[in-house]
Amino acid sequence: MTIRPESPTATELLVCVKCRRGQELPGDARRPGQALYDGLTALDCPHGLRITPVECLQNCDYGCTIALRGGDAKWTYVFANVDEGSHPEMILSGAAQYHDSTDGVIPWRERPEHFKRNCIARIPPVTQTEEA
Amino acid sequence: MTIRPESPTATELLVCVKCRRGQELPGDARRPGQALYDGLTALDCPHGLRITPVECLQNCDYGCTIALRGGDAKWTYVFANVDEGSHPEMILSGAAQYHDSTDGVIPWRERPEHFKRNCIARIPPVTQTEEA
Repeated sequence: MTIRPESPTATELLVCVKCRRGQELPGDARRPGQALYDGLTALDCPHGLRITPVECLQNCDYGCTIALRGGDAKWTYVFANVDEGSHPEMILSGAAQYHDSTDGVIPWRERPEHFKRNCIARIPPVTQTEEA
Repeated sequence: MTIRPESPTATELLVCVKCRRGQELPGDARRPGQALYDGLTALDCPHGLRITPVECLQNCDYGCTIALRGGDAKWTYVFANVDEGSHPEMILSGAAQYHDSTDGVIPWRERPEHFKRNCIARIPPVTQTEEA
């Protein structure tokens, strides 16, 4: 079934559920990425946020990995070195801040410390000025 | 002026023009990221591709950095460790392969070696199946 986010301005939290976070694991073990997804979805979901499992975000050396996107007018952010045990509440709080922003940029002084230090890439809005 | 890519299926090559690639540079020096952009735009641009300068893709430790995106149906890819002198032709060739693909995934055996080894993140299509 093909679906789209509920509205163009919905925020999507993408979670790499295949992440091993550098660990050797038996084939049937629950991976840290899946544990992160389970931890996030067990909490109350902030308004406007959707949590989406993704097979691989290809940041395998610095997992676990999440990304935030929110339509054509916002920057998309990728964050690395996420801990599946201690970070879910911080991530949802940051995702809510992202959702409330106009362009996806959380003001620096309000940004979660982990987001400040572990952003590995960001992708600009699709709608942008001609002079970047 | 606010603009959008020419069509929903156009491919956009995003280039971080502020990248210092780890070098200490005088304030008025041309940065490696700008040199990369200049090198790319000096070549013949493949059909369907648009090259866009971006202020910062925030992959500062592993620059130069580029990203490829191509509308809601394609994966977006971020590639690191790009060399402004030797890589422009390879990048445009890879961008043309990306443009020709259905979902943004270049078949592994056809993928440029640099793309294989220096993908630091990818973002899934906006249109996706419910079971990721």
